[in-house]
Amino acid sequence: MNFSSKLLEDAVAEFTKLPGVGQKTALRLVLHLLNREKEEVTRFSTAISRLRNEIQFCSTCHNISDSTICEICASHKRDHSLVCVVEDTRDVMAIENTNQYNGVYHVLGGLISPMDGVGPSDLQVDTLVERLKESGVKEIIFALSATMEGDTTIFYLHKRLKQFNINISTIARGIAFGGELEYVDEITLGRSIVTRVPYENSLS
Amino acid sequence: MNFSSKLLEDAVAEFTKLPGVGQKTALRLVLHLLNREKEEVTRFSTAISRLRNEIQFCSTCHNISDSTICEICASHKRDHSLVCVVEDTRDVMAIENTNQYNGVYHVLGGLISPMDGVGPSDLQVDTLVERLKESGVKEIIFALSATMEGDTTIFYLHKRLKQFNINISTIARGIAFGGELEYVDEITLGRSIVTRVPYENSLS
Repeated sequence: MNFSSKLLEDAVAEFTKLPGVGQKTALRLVLHLLNREKEEVTRFSTAISRLRNEIQFCSTCHNISDSTICEICASHKRDHSLVCVVEDTRDVMAIENTNQYNGVYHVLGGLISPMDGVGPSDLQVDTLVERLKESGVKEIIFALSATMEGDTTIFYLHKRLKQFNINISTIARGIAFGGELEYVDEITLGRSIVTRVPYENSLS
Repeated sequence: MNFSSKLLEDAVAEFTKLPGVGQKTALRLVLHLLNREKEEVTRFSTAISRLRNEIQFCSTCHNISDSTICEICASHKRDHSLVCVVEDTRDVMAIENTNQYNGVYHVLGGLISPMDGVGPSDLQVDTLVERLKESGVKEIIFALSATMEGDTTIFYLHKRLKQFNINISTIARGIAFGGELEYVDEITLGRSIVTRVPYENSLS
């Protein structure tokens, strides 16, 4: 593209580095910002810069936080003997939104993926092991994506964690609520028959 | 959503103000920025803030520019008697990419749209009239979108400009090159039959 301005070109180039943003979308976003008030754009730019420079991670669960201990880890109302292991902060938000979980979290910061060059040392695995050594954790729940990377990570963590005398569980897999049987994939449907639960347990 | 951090929440809120960006996309973009190097994020945030605060508009054609006169208006190789009226800088870029136009531009900064509350006074219309009074412009080409707003703007501008002794034209409308006849809409196809051109003129 022939840009009439270097400033414009730079801003578009920066936007195209975002995932899923091509050059046309970037130009549209940049022109949108140009039409907004200067104060609004300053607020946008400041929010991004502050986020990256001032954000902290909870020293216990490694979730994104504004302080050294996040609200969940600091809360006395939560059950600190129950730790849910998740990939990132989005999963914490998703589980918190269910209002069904009262334990604490451990955010790995990713999943083991040899294809992408992500190994256990890139994740908060050692800190999880340390955490289990010290505190009175009774149960670990793996709430990871049902993908190859998620399964690999669970397999690896299970090997590392079975030395401790704690219960290890994973979130249930099966047909989603509201899901129509004919659209469910074969693997999920097959496993959900094999791992069927007594009718009474399915009610809650 | 329950954000674990105010900084995170602020950044997501700012991103959702961009067109076509919902809360989930915003969160994905923000987490992507969090994983990038601090210098990269600073570059991103600076590019946006500089763009809005330092950008200028060419005093002749009102296109986005880094100086008071843009490169096109300053060039002696361009035909300054031919002015192409466009909506915004994207259209200038699109026409420049064709390598078929050697005149100069006039960027309106929008189209007349009573629905959105945009009238002639919000656009660079008076400056266009002034420009025609002074300089030796011989032809005006309207290169505006073939929409209701585009047509309204052309109608209005034509009324304002016909007092001058200059040629007024619009870009040709018809079937796109490579377009298959069966997929062309009725209005375009109908008009392209009515406004058919001699075969020799269609070759170039």
